Amino acid sequence: MKKCYLDNASTTQTKPASVYQAVNDTMQHNGCSPSRGGYGCAIEAGRKILDARSALARLFNVADSRYIVFTPGITWSINMVLLGLLKEGDHVITTSMEHNAVTRPLRCLEQEKQIEVSWVKANALGQIDPGQIEQEIRAKTRLILVNHASNIIGTILPLAEIAEISRRNKVLLMADCAQTAGYCDLDFQNLGLDILAFTGHKALYGPPGTGGMILSERAAREIKPVIQGGTGSSSASQLQPEMMPEKFESGTHNTPGIAGLGAGVKFVLDIGLENIRRHEQALLEQLVAGLREIPFVTIYYSGNTEKQVPTISITIENLDMGEASILLDERYGIMTRSGIHCAPISHQTIGTFPLGTIRLSIGYFNTPADISYTVQAITELAKEYNK
Amino acid sequence: MKKCYLDNASTTQTKPASVYQAVNDTMQHNGCSPSRGGYGCAIEAGRKILDARSALARLFNVADSRYIVFTPGITWSINMVLLGLLKEGDHVITTSMEHNAVTRPLRCLEQEKQIEVSWVKANALGQIDPGQIEQEIRAKTRLILVNHASNIIGTILPLAEIAEISRRNKVLLMADCAQTAGYCDLDFQNLGLDILAFTGHKALYGPPGTGGMILSERAAREIKPVIQGGTGSSSASQLQPEMMPEKFESGTHNTPGIAGLGAGVKFVLDIGLENIRRHEQALLEQLVAGLREIPFVTIYYSGNTEKQVPTISITIENLDMGEASILLDERYGIMTRSGIHCAPISHQTIGTFPLGTIRLSIGYFNTPADISYTVQAITELAKEYNK
Repeated sequence: MKKCYLDNASTTQTKPASVYQAVNDTMQHNGCSPSRGGYGCAIEAGRKILDARSALARLFNVADSRYIVFTPGITWSINMVLLGLLKEGDHVITTSMEHNAVTRPLRCLEQEKQIEVSWVKANALGQIDPGQIEQEIRAKTRLILVNHASNIIGTILPLAEIAEISRRNKVLLMADCAQTAGYCDLDFQNLGLDILAFTGHKALYGPPGTGGMILSERAAREIKPVIQGGTGSSSASQLQPEMMPEKFESGTHNTPGIAGLGAGVKFVLDIGLENIRRHEQALLEQLVAGLREIPFVTIYYSGNTEKQVPTISITIENLDMGEASILLDERYGIMTRSGIHCAPISHQTIGTFPLGTIRLSIGYFNTPADISYTVQAITELAKEYNK
Repeated sequence: MKKCYLDNASTTQTKPASVYQAVNDTMQHNGCSPSRGGYGCAIEAGRKILDARSALARLFNVADSRYIVFTPGITWSINMVLLGLLKEGDHVITTSMEHNAVTRPLRCLEQEKQIEVSWVKANALGQIDPGQIEQEIRAKTRLILVNHASNIIGTILPLAEIAEISRRNKVLLMADCAQTAGYCDLDFQNLGLDILAFTGHKALYGPPGTGGMILSERAAREIKPVIQGGTGSSSASQLQPEMMPEKFESGTHNTPGIAGLGAGVKFVLDIGLENIRRHEQALLEQLVAGLREIPFVTIYYSGNTEKQVPTISITIENLDMGEASILLDERYGIMTRSGIHCAPISHQTIGTFPLGTIRLSIGYFNTPADISYTVQAITELAKEYNK
């Protein structure tokens, strides 16, 4: 049976060959603690981490790569910022399009640390007027935290305008770029972000277990380190060092994973964001156009394929979404994800809670043939269940 | 030049072939989000994580493997417990033989959360009388946290006796088993531990970026989840689920790393802890006996090779330890780690602060030839610098 992977918004399953090779090479030849020992392979392991940091600095236009912090993934990055930054009584502005990686820690902080949260409501297309965010700013507002693009319907928020508002009001801004890093042109310096949180295993084509955050000098100064421990530097001190990136990187690095992430980022740089986007956007247009022709299928997306990442949701009348996802896999080899996608408030916003949707998310390794095959499969399912 | 890796207490550099294969296979064939999608390869990815959990349950005799939590490493485990458990005014008992993964977060909690800490002082051999710990227990004592074995001189603490004290006094006990998991027989149920923190990349022969913690039911109930987010379960809820292990496992798993850790643990189970220990202890005895014969070399260890892990420290008169470590690598290909080893208070305890030592740590893949070669090399260096 043909296999067609359309769950790239979870994890890009196929990686460039260079990523497999970087992970394997590092496992085999640099399986030691990076930059801790003074011997050759430890120094080389440290260099591999530096290389990955440099590649990320190129991709995101970061002047000083020490402000790029590696974490085990974006969920960790977001939690480390929220817990390291917010004090009792602080106010946070976020949106109704967030992932549970934002919603759950914030709900907990509301309950346990008297943090106030304004949940700015998007419309059913996932759009937010930046003015809505500015209206919520108060004296106690410490952080604006927005999902750069929806993991359900792909809508991209106007980050530059939101960044302009945060700067004008001197409030820190964190962008959750889980869905956009490796797809959108994210210029950290020119956007003037304070915190850009990213994950490695999606459109940066790195392994699961990798990710990080890029911090402005102000953010690096004001956020306290949540996870503390050995940094291989200032080893004689019983206090966490203030220097970057050690302040936020304790414990033995995931060197094989980080080397793989570095290779993934280099792949993105080599292909070029514009070419990646052109390819995937064409597939997205093909998908939306094909699905539009199918009776009994409802499409949930931003309404404009140029202003979103290549992730959309659908529902099929008279068919449970979990069952539809299983049928797509079993009968057609099409891999999708059904349900709530760890984003209940997003589904409430677009009107698909609690039943959820099937999400179809495109990656660089998808082809036009994948898309026509998928449209054909969904056509058959929709017909079968709506005789 | 011959290569001889003696930095196993940092990371075991050589892994069993099955570990490389498990990581590579998972990267190539299960590079999707485990148990999130309903399709075959996601289900298989989920099964690989379950397999690793089961292998750990066998090794540590854990009745219900859901109480084994995967983390990115032991530093994360320790921080997650301290931050998730301790409230203002709580009292913690620990020792003067801890790693900075314990010292740094505790020093921070002393300053910022009014946590009181008793640092029970070991003697110069790293030994602690459990009675010293019991004497420190007060009404507000919430946690006893001990380094099961020193990462500098290898001394093993009497964990069963300390566990008996913690049970009798109804105080939670966390054992930092960074140096003992995979070497000592650690029976979680029979010891009656509350928290066993372990790392994957040392004597469990897993990849860097893996580790975890095993929790008792009480610990799982009383510790709050520090890192919250998507768990792929209870997806419709905006609150972190209480069920195990999801309560403490948010975000996409490091499936390739965890599969590698599973293979490492199976390797340990296959060889058998007793055989591993017999082999490494023989090498340790050979090393200590050889070093004893060298003038101008001081050995720091527990004084009894049977009651410690195969990690010792040395100093050489008239030679800076950093320089000695570099000479061992450059001239002889012997990889060691010099300095403070992220454990300043341990070095203060054994009297080697702030100059530090050279640490020699043995792993399963070392041979008697490695040891005689190392003794010969150190003999030459000591002679050269003490003419």
